[in-house]
Amino acid sequence: VTDFCLDWSREARTGLHEAVLCAPKTGDQIQAICAHAMQARQRLLLTRLSPRKFEGLSDATRSALDYEPVSRTAMLGGAHPPRGTGRVIIVAGGTSDARVAREAARTLEFAGETASLVIDVGVAGMWRLMERLDDIRTHRVVIAVAGMEGAIFSVLGGLVPGVVIAVPTSVGYGVASRGKVALHAALASCASGLVVVNIDNGFGAAHAALRILGREPSPPGG
Amino acid sequence: VTDFCLDWSREARTGLHEAVLCAPKTGDQIQAICAHAMQARQRLLLTRLSPRKFEGLSDATRSALDYEPVSRTAMLGGAHPPRGTGRVIIVAGGTSDARVAREAARTLEFAGETASLVIDVGVAGMWRLMERLDDIRTHRVVIAVAGMEGAIFSVLGGLVPGVVIAVPTSVGYGVASRGKVALHAALASCASGLVVVNIDNGFGAAHAALRILGREPSPPGG
Amino acid sequence: VTDFCLDWSREARTGLHEAVLCAPKTGDQIQAICAHAMQARQRLLLTRLSPRKFEGLSDATRSALDYEPVSRTAMLGGAHPPRGTGRVIIVAGGTSDARVAREAARTLEFAGETASLVIDVGVAGMWRLMERLDDIRTHRVVIAVAGMEGAIFSVLGGLVPGVVIAVPTSVGYGVASRGKVALHAALASCASGLVVVNIDNGFGAAHAALRILGREPSPPGG
Amino acid sequence: VTDFCLDWSREARTGLHEAVLCAPKTGDQIQAICAHAMQARQRLLLTRLSPRKFEGLSDATRSALDYEPVSRTAMLGGAHPPRGTGRVIIVAGGTSDARVAREAARTLEFAGETASLVIDVGVAGMWRLMERLDDIRTHRVVIAVAGMEGAIFSVLGGLVPGVVIAVPTSVGYGVASRGKVALHAALASCASGLVVVNIDNGFGAAHAALRILGREPSPPGG
Amino acid sequence: VTDFCLDWSREARTGLHEAVLCAPKTGDQIQAICAHAMQARQRLLLTRLSPRKFEGLSDATRSALDYEPVSRTAMLGGAHPPRGTGRVIIVAGGTSDARVAREAARTLEFAGETASLVIDVGVAGMWRLMERLDDIRTHRVVIAVAGMEGAIFSVLGGLVPGVVIAVPTSVGYGVASRGKVALHAALASCASGLVVVNIDNGFGAAHAALRILGREPSPPGG
Amino acid sequence: VTDFCLDWSREARTGLHEAVLCAPKTGDQIQAICAHAMQARQRLLLTRLSPRKFEGLSDATRSALDYEPVSRTAMLGGAHPPRGTGRVIIVAGGTSDARVAREAARTLEFAGETASLVIDVGVAGMWRLMERLDDIRTHRVVIAVAGMEGAIFSVLGGLVPGVVIAVPTSVGYGVASRGKVALHAALASCASGLVVVNIDNGFGAAHAALRILGREPSPPGG
Amino acid sequence: VTDFCLDWSREARTGLHEAVLCAPKTGDQIQAICAHAMQARQRLLLTRLSPRKFEGLSDATRSALDYEPVSRTAMLGGAHPPRGTGRVIIVAGGTSDARVAREAARTLEFAGETASLVIDVGVAGMWRLMERLDDIRTHRVVIAVAGMEGAIFSVLGGLVPGVVIAVPTSVGYGVASRGKVALHAALASCASGLVVVNIDNGFGAAHAALRILGREPSPPGG
Amino acid sequence: VTDFCLDWSREARTGLHEAVLCAPKTGDQIQAICAHAMQARQRLLLTRLSPRKFEGLSDATRSALDYEPVSRTAMLGGAHPPRGTGRVIIVAGGTSDARVAREAARTLEFAGETASLVIDVGVAGMWRLMERLDDIRTHRVVIAVAGMEGAIFSVLGGLVPGVVIAVPTSVGYGVASRGKVALHAALASCASGLVVVNIDNGFGAAHAALRILGREPSPPGG
Repeated sequence: VTDFCLDWSREARTGLHEAVLCAPKTGDQIQAICAHAMQARQRLLLTRLSPRKFEGLSDATRSALDYEPVSRTAMLGGAHPPRGTGRVIIVAGGTSDARVAREAARTLEFAGETASLVIDVGVAGMWRLMERLDDIRTHRVVIAVAGMEGAIFSVLGGLVPGVVIAVPTSVGYGVASRGKVALHAALASCASGLVVVNIDNGFGAAHAALRILGREPSPPGG
Repeated sequence: VTDFCLDWSREARTGLHEAVLCAPKTGDQIQAICAHAMQARQRLLLTRLSPRKFEGLSDATRSALDYEPVSRTAMLGGAHPPRGTGRVIIVAGGTSDARVAREAARTLEFAGETASLVIDVGVAGMWRLMERLDDIRTHRVVIAVAGMEGAIFSVLGGLVPGVVIAVPTSVGYGVASRGKVALHAALASCASGLVVVNIDNGFGAAHAALRILGREPSPPGG
Repeated sequence: VTDFCLDWSREARTGLHEAVLCAPKTGDQIQAICAHAMQARQRLLLTRLSPRKFEGLSDATRSALDYEPVSRTAMLGGAHPPRGTGRVIIVAGGTSDARVAREAARTLEFAGETASLVIDVGVAGMWRLMERLDDIRTHRVVIAVAGMEGAIFSVLGGLVPGVVIAVPTSVGYGVASRGKVALHAALASCASGLVVVNIDNGFGAAHAALRILGREPSPPGG
Repeated sequence: VTDFCLDWSREARTGLHEAVLCAPKTGDQIQAICAHAMQARQRLLLTRLSPRKFEGLSDATRSALDYEPVSRTAMLGGAHPPRGTGRVIIVAGGTSDARVAREAARTLEFAGETASLVIDVGVAGMWRLMERLDDIRTHRVVIAVAGMEGAIFSVLGGLVPGVVIAVPTSVGYGVASRGKVALHAALASCASGLVVVNIDNGFGAAHAALRILGREPSPPGG
Repeated sequence: VTDFCLDWSREARTGLHEAVLCAPKTGDQIQAICAHAMQARQRLLLTRLSPRKFEGLSDATRSALDYEPVSRTAMLGGAHPPRGTGRVIIVAGGTSDARVAREAARTLEFAGETASLVIDVGVAGMWRLMERLDDIRTHRVVIAVAGMEGAIFSVLGGLVPGVVIAVPTSVGYGVASRGKVALHAALASCASGLVVVNIDNGFGAAHAALRILGREPSPPGG
Repeated sequence: VTDFCLDWSREARTGLHEAVLCAPKTGDQIQAICAHAMQARQRLLLTRLSPRKFEGLSDATRSALDYEPVSRTAMLGGAHPPRGTGRVIIVAGGTSDARVAREAARTLEFAGETASLVIDVGVAGMWRLMERLDDIRTHRVVIAVAGMEGAIFSVLGGLVPGVVIAVPTSVGYGVASRGKVALHAALASCASGLVVVNIDNGFGAAHAALRILGREPSPPGG
Repeated sequence: VTDFCLDWSREARTGLHEAVLCAPKTGDQIQAICAHAMQARQRLLLTRLSPRKFEGLSDATRSALDYEPVSRTAMLGGAHPPRGTGRVIIVAGGTSDARVAREAARTLEFAGETASLVIDVGVAGMWRLMERLDDIRTHRVVIAVAGMEGAIFSVLGGLVPGVVIAVPTSVGYGVASRGKVALHAALASCASGLVVVNIDNGFGAAHAALRILGREPSPPGG
Repeated sequence: VTDFCLDWSREARTGLHEAVLCAPKTGDQIQAICAHAMQARQRLLLTRLSPRKFEGLSDATRSALDYEPVSRTAMLGGAHPPRGTGRVIIVAGGTSDARVAREAARTLEFAGETASLVIDVGVAGMWRLMERLDDIRTHRVVIAVAGMEGAIFSVLGGLVPGVVIAVPTSVGYGVASRGKVALHAALASCASGLVVVNIDNGFGAAHAALRILGREPSPPGG
């Protein structure tokens, strides 16, 4: 019995590549999955790979991975050649949300989509957001990333005609300590037509954006 | 054994008048309390008095009360002569919050404070709020009333220099069905210095405003 | 002070029409809003309008409304002329979810989008879903509506390349009694790229679909 | 006063052997319990024995134990001679659930029951499950192990005629961070006749399977 | 579009008959489902059918149904001829749990299994339970039904060698007001090998018992 | 099968009489229990018997019961002859808590213990409590009844040397809407040695007081 | 400003000695409090003093303390001379509850009360409890300590005439992970007259027992 | 892309200075923010800066900061010259709340407001509070800081005429383990006109006090 089973045909079926969530896995499991993918000559995105777990991988695996520590993501086999740009913008409420915002950006990059990234544009200083509004409105998909009370989700939802994907983050303390307040604020927003993903799920928001942008099969080299 | 005990000296001690929360009381208890106050020639504010319970009171009691059904408040002995105006503004996010906003306004009126009232100025239509902003900023205390995700609390907190008292309401459904989302959003707001009262507690917000405005003993006629 | 404030410019700004959530409003408030809209010759969608509240409106208002009791929606000024079809499919897990599924369908119809509707295609009888799968996969947006444990969200997410908008419903009992289980199942799904709206929010899912399909200003006749 | 009291007659009464949950116990307590069992020449299963706690036991105790680190179980006195096979299959949704699945397998093995084990057969890649379905259906008891949204419980429940025991796991993040979503999904499943045990309770699922398979007193050598 | 879809092949697949949960359905939907089943000459079990909803059905439908008001169940097409007896016993902690216990008994009866029923055998009067213990121990499956703190689940689990299916009920007040305490007590029980179903789910417990007893296809006359 | 089973030997075993919680029982069940007790010539206390359910009982049963509507209790066979007085005092925070306080008083009276009762002595008007303090301190058991934030529990606990039994009530709204805040405040109190019973459980507090006062078997006439 | 303020007159007022909860305090704060008490020649009980914090205290302080690591308690100035025995028994459900049971025993010992202690007498092996029952029934106060589902509280409450103080513990996992299940089971118990203290609060249970046993001022030497 | 964006104009707009919450930020982010502020010659308050993170900053940054470890605050550019005194008093319930009380004091000091500080004046020893009451009543704003059950909020609210800002803290265990009990007690207080901030939010309470005291633009030297 092996403890894993990769899904190389997923891209054909849903247009989305296989990815591995590393947080609940042991180092041995991650090592085995990477070895399997390298042998099968398949591309793979690893998310929630902590620096400590990354350091514990074999030299061969580490050198095969393109690792980025803020987002805690690693690409095996490199990013897809660019397929689109100017269609997705990622807006993060505060500095502490950068980690999740960059996970979304890296996931899009892995799929060949280049996203814009704007960080620390909170609601308490509304004009910072207003200065950027015209630019934000030109994008088809806005990924909004925020913790605490998540007021930025409603503000953006009321001002932007495109799709707004809210990514609540676990930034906050007291009543907001695990991200539930931002999550619920996004779901209960008075701005209609917002859609929401799980707390800290930058990866999922990026995949949702890819589903929205279209699902052409990736080119042969992909 | 009687089941109640009124506190006529409260005003001397805290500057705030005695009030009676009617929701958890029986009609008999409310009737007895009113009779006692009339006999003692004391003013009294009744809150959360449903139309049905009001109808069930004796004719004498009903005619002694100044009842207002939207706010579900009744004044016994009338409002205090005007003491202040232009110091408090009540801003409600939506039509459904009117009930709570008017409870705050009536409580202030009972104490002699005349408040401005602005209803249905939500965040999803931000410019409605912006048009009012200069006026709002001239008040020393802003009572913000909102349900659902309560984004208006953070927006006001970032734009207004005075005190912002957030009153979350139980307006909403799904995750927001009992007001917890708006409450938590107010507490977790990224705008610093907001203060918060219990869900639907327009009365409490008004009393907090009175504490902020000062606590001079009311004049003899009060 | 009036207790409401309609937003006729919302469509220009976000491509979405003004709508009124009736559940937390009194009959008087709904009546006043309808009168205002009729006077302003504006179209309006009313949601969560219970048969009892609908019966309580004036004759003139009732006859101006196109009311549908299962979805509890009413259109004032009629639906938008058809703009699109074959792009959105609504899939409901059980008979009890029909109410929410039809709210989504009516909201889309009001905006000129004709959606397909498939009801009672649950996971416990998987092949019912499988028989429909080829048809479902041809749509750009799938609105999945389910209560209880919401397993259908993950099953669809793994089989469909387009956008899947999960609408959890408050159908269920015991641990599932208010829709939280289906909501959390949608958010925690192992199928990546699902997006989620609030419990019972068929209206919001429809608006999200409209944002995804594009945001051209509506034609003059709209 | 000693702090423990073992129950050697439990097997006669319920057909199930004594076992010790190590997580909330100190190393000293575990050491004393093992010493007592060795002296009494009794077999004992230890669960949730972390590698660190195992390392801290005396050499004599460690060498008397058959320890397996993934499942964190140790057998004292060895497994029961084989009594049954082909009756129980353990199906785990993802790699991260292996830990719990293997705890169930070891508990069955300790009682003389050999179970099949299938890992990483999730719902997002449904056909992986479908390929295995004919095999799964031949077993009298299916122990289904899954975290996150636990959709696999409903899918199996709808396709399998035997007993399905759902073991939710604490694999997940955000709303699913401690296993509550998978637990509630199992309890609220639209597939009827599922039974559920506590989060991460592979041991309990195995004992339930043993109760289902029958309760003959163990043979003299046991 | 019809709003329902019955699953007549379910019995072949899982050995369990189609059933309809009436609580979240409208009278019209229930009426239509019954009509459909009668036309298709299929047996059907209806659960959670309140007396008021039952009274609202057409005369023809009412006379075709075998309705029992305590359990709120109705059989269409009658019970299956007896297939087994003496294998299942239903033990209810208190009088208030009778409703759920009888739902389980009726569901078993519909499938041809005759269960024993013992009501009001609580833990606070332990000897009432002890007097019955020898009888209880002769059954292969014990369905234990209890609300409040559900202590009876653990007591039975420690004394009985067969399968114990715990059905927590929503009987209780204060912390126990919706059945969560009994549910959690069953899941966290110190007696190993208990299995649990959703709160008030007598129907599900009966189906689980049927899965345990075996899954032979029902005879032709079924 | 009858649906109930009374425990006439309970008093011998625990010193406490049999009692029946009526809220979750049907009128038929209550009627049957009363008939059984009258036939067996046993005393019985009924709690949470709503006026409507009381009215629905047979004339014979109603005339045999001593019913008190505020506490919603009924005694069958009358109260025990007085056994003690001056040992228990019941202190209620507000008028709305009278219902629960009186349930405790009636339960004590049924057992022959006469309790003092003080209502509406809240913390917000502390001196009301202080005026009574010397009297309160002379009692061996203080039953404190309060809803909302339950601050009175801590205040009494710090000032009184005897036993303080906290009875949180479901009086309050917003965060306090079902009594959880008062319950948790009692449990988390900084005053050591408080003991707590379930929300609204005046009956349980009285029984705890009886356990504290001693457990002599009741005299023959009891 | 010093950060603490000890209450040497508490014993005169409530019959209970001053005690210090160390868990939320820094080592410096604990050190300062001990120094202050030693200088004032006052006895002091320290609870929740972890071995690590104890090791960090000064040599002088450590040698003045009587520290016991399982209960994590320390006495300064020694225990009170014995005042009572045979009146309190502490019954712990499992080995893992020993920590809390011993905190209660030490707190009683500090006050001069010698308690019996019985550990690992769970409900799953009921006869272990039954063998002890006659002895347990001779005590005036039973302190019952249990985690997981806390069934032992109800079993004892139904069998014992004296006061039963339930101390739920944070022993358990999954739904029981922080002690809420045992707490709620104690509060919702079907055995009437149980009283409850906070999770893991062995200290509080001991103080409650002292309140019950009487409140004579301690003798001069105390 | 830089990951932060400071708001130097905030003081002009709201009268409150820019501040940085360090807990969710990495050392690199804090370092960069400080460097940016020093270069811009702006004053900055850092909160929740743990000693370990402070030690990890560069020598230059550390020497530019006025760091205080109990409150975990650091001032860059020093405190504002004194502007007011005798207007705010901070009252902490227990020693363990000192950390939060001192955060409030430091935040006020940074803005030029000198607050009084009284620590360990709990409700269980009420007279400690009463001795201080006359002094407390002379202040315009009382910041009350307490964990566990937060009874002090209600006691102060009933005795003091000025504004009472409740700051619940995460001090407590069992049901009170993360501060929710104190928070809810403050919100549900029977003393009217209390206002509340998030758990442990000493900083926010100080900003609220500054909003209450007035919002004059700071003098040029500020």
